[in-house]
Amino acid sequence: MIYLDNAATTFPKPKSVYDNVMKAMKEYGANPGRGSHAMAMKGAKIIYETRELLAELFNLEDPMNVIFTSNATDSLNIAIKGILKPGDHVITTTMEHNSVLRPIKELEKYGVENTIVLCKVDGSIDVVDIENAIKNNTKLIVTTHASNLTGTIFPIEKIGAICKKHNITYLLDAAQSAGVLDIDVQKNNIGILSVPGHKGLLGPQGTGALLINSDIVIDTIKQGGTGSESSSLYQPNFYPDKFEAGTHNLPGIAGLNAGIKYILNEGTKSIYSHEKELIDTFIKEIRNNKKISIYGPESLENRCGVVPINIFDMDSSEVAYILDSKYNIAIRSGLHCAPLAHKTIGTEKIGAVRFSVGPFNKKTEVIIAAKALNEISNM
Amino acid sequence: MIYLDNAATTFPKPKSVYDNVMKAMKEYGANPGRGSHAMAMKGAKIIYETRELLAELFNLEDPMNVIFTSNATDSLNIAIKGILKPGDHVITTTMEHNSVLRPIKELEKYGVENTIVLCKVDGSIDVVDIENAIKNNTKLIVTTHASNLTGTIFPIEKIGAICKKHNITYLLDAAQSAGVLDIDVQKNNIGILSVPGHKGLLGPQGTGALLINSDIVIDTIKQGGTGSESSSLYQPNFYPDKFEAGTHNLPGIAGLNAGIKYILNEGTKSIYSHEKELIDTFIKEIRNNKKISIYGPESLENRCGVVPINIFDMDSSEVAYILDSKYNIAIRSGLHCAPLAHKTIGTEKIGAVRFSVGPFNKKTEVIIAAKALNEISNM
Repeated sequence: MIYLDNAATTFPKPKSVYDNVMKAMKEYGANPGRGSHAMAMKGAKIIYETRELLAELFNLEDPMNVIFTSNATDSLNIAIKGILKPGDHVITTTMEHNSVLRPIKELEKYGVENTIVLCKVDGSIDVVDIENAIKNNTKLIVTTHASNLTGTIFPIEKIGAICKKHNITYLLDAAQSAGVLDIDVQKNNIGILSVPGHKGLLGPQGTGALLINSDIVIDTIKQGGTGSESSSLYQPNFYPDKFEAGTHNLPGIAGLNAGIKYILNEGTKSIYSHEKELIDTFIKEIRNNKKISIYGPESLENRCGVVPINIFDMDSSEVAYILDSKYNIAIRSGLHCAPLAHKTIGTEKIGAVRFSVGPFNKKTEVIIAAKALNEISNM
Repeated sequence: MIYLDNAATTFPKPKSVYDNVMKAMKEYGANPGRGSHAMAMKGAKIIYETRELLAELFNLEDPMNVIFTSNATDSLNIAIKGILKPGDHVITTTMEHNSVLRPIKELEKYGVENTIVLCKVDGSIDVVDIENAIKNNTKLIVTTHASNLTGTIFPIEKIGAICKKHNITYLLDAAQSAGVLDIDVQKNNIGILSVPGHKGLLGPQGTGALLINSDIVIDTIKQGGTGSESSSLYQPNFYPDKFEAGTHNLPGIAGLNAGIKYILNEGTKSIYSHEKELIDTFIKEIRNNKKISIYGPESLENRCGVVPINIFDMDSSEVAYILDSKYNIAIRSGLHCAPLAHKTIGTEKIGAVRFSVGPFNKKTEVIIAAKALNEISNM
């Protein structure tokens, strides 16, 4: 099987990820932070080390400001709901995933205003439009780093600079970029970084994180046992415990630990350059086929490892079905939980066929996929 | 190492649990429900099958009312926050875990009233006290099934009957009982059942579930991509998608799948009877030691596999340290995230040393642990 659905979740993971998950379950499968015996301590150590690895990768000063979550959606909800109060205003864009848009639309019911900045047909944003949308009550700007539909890379350093200038917190959704594109929360003025564990960071599903590089008050949406201040009926007010009620996903975090080590070892530059080469090859193979529409930015420099296409008059799900059943190629069709992004690029009615590469894809695989598309377009 | 900290998380898990986690990662590690290709479909199938298994184990009618969460704390927050609105009243007890108490105390800030019914020194509840606490605005009664501190089993069928009589929703926290004691949501009038995946159900950490046997409206505290109604900027209003935004913990759920199958195969009766025998043996070995205080119910019939003790004038953490370092026995000391429960049994100042057994503990292990305690008490 050729797996080109890495924007949904990366597959496969490095062998060390599988090994670490198994070790965490078999060798120290106790409850970390909930006991002082050797096994529980070993679990707690791995969790702390994973905080350090995330802090290192994204240049966050304090590893204790790394919050583990169950996925990026969880991270984004904690940040968006924790910061915005009735009367506040939030700016976001049409290229966002429903994990950003749905919490923001939910808050609208409680008097939190929003502006959703319209992006261009290639998925790119004009940062001037973001700055123009700022109002007196703007508290938060939330953008994606790279669109999950078109792969378009946003100029995060410019958006970060605008946030800094206006003293607004920047929440970056790095669902498609973490582990592939460089992110420096300090240099890029990112107040809060949301990452999934199971995509570019190569960890298992069930993991995510929030990196807090800001003094802004974030309320909790969840309370419970933290193994700290246990005599109190109130949630502790320090990080990370404030946001980490209940038992951690230890096997997941142990796997993520190995995933991040793999990335730190390979280097994001090498991973990104590999993915760019794959995308370049793929696009070159289908570019001259007039029946195929390719969406997203023209320049390879503005795109991460995601290419959505449509074959002239075919439904995207039909193309996906043929790719799966006839060619054994896994991709994702439909709306990709990003309805406004599809509207932005003009595909809200038909959806799109999304190809997304990962660090373990080979050039031959994208060539086979491109050839399959050319064949299907001639059926 | 002798592991007697199963109330924190069971260890080890059945071999099939480890195998299923690995299979989910290596063989069908795609994103379930986010693509229509073979791998994603296989993941979606395992998830649905696990809903069916949970529904079977707890006699819930519709598997689509099984909601996957990241742990029992997550489940409890979803239920408590989703149901209670300003002006409502909730009844709970002093034997609850902070995963129940902290969300309820948080809601107090927003005008949700609560009554925390005082339990007896053995951790038991007088159901009359619950019924007497009911007011006109009582919307929810939340109790544990078995205390994580004393192991005391609550008469859930009686509490369920009171809830039915007064048309109040019963939320049962089965953190210590799911997979060991029989629970029938229909027969016991349980409106909502909260379970962790990684304790008695023998799944991996990072898993939990909420089983909804009620028509009560539960609002979401989290929104995001669900792979359904993707063109909408609002969270779908049907189960389970309403509460399952973001990527599932597929390896975790696949492991839980195997854990539940193990339980259905062994039978809860056999597991409970094994644990009862271990507890019986353990208590008999230390009962005559005047320096050891044993907490919880006198009768074995009213206790699940948890026994907290203290050695006369020793700090509970010191006993834990000696057990770990000298005897290689893993238990949990301190307050167990249950401050009011400790107050109820009179140990809020000194904490307690909690022994908790699981299906894989052997009689020899609890005898060794008891002998260690007798030795320590004579140091």
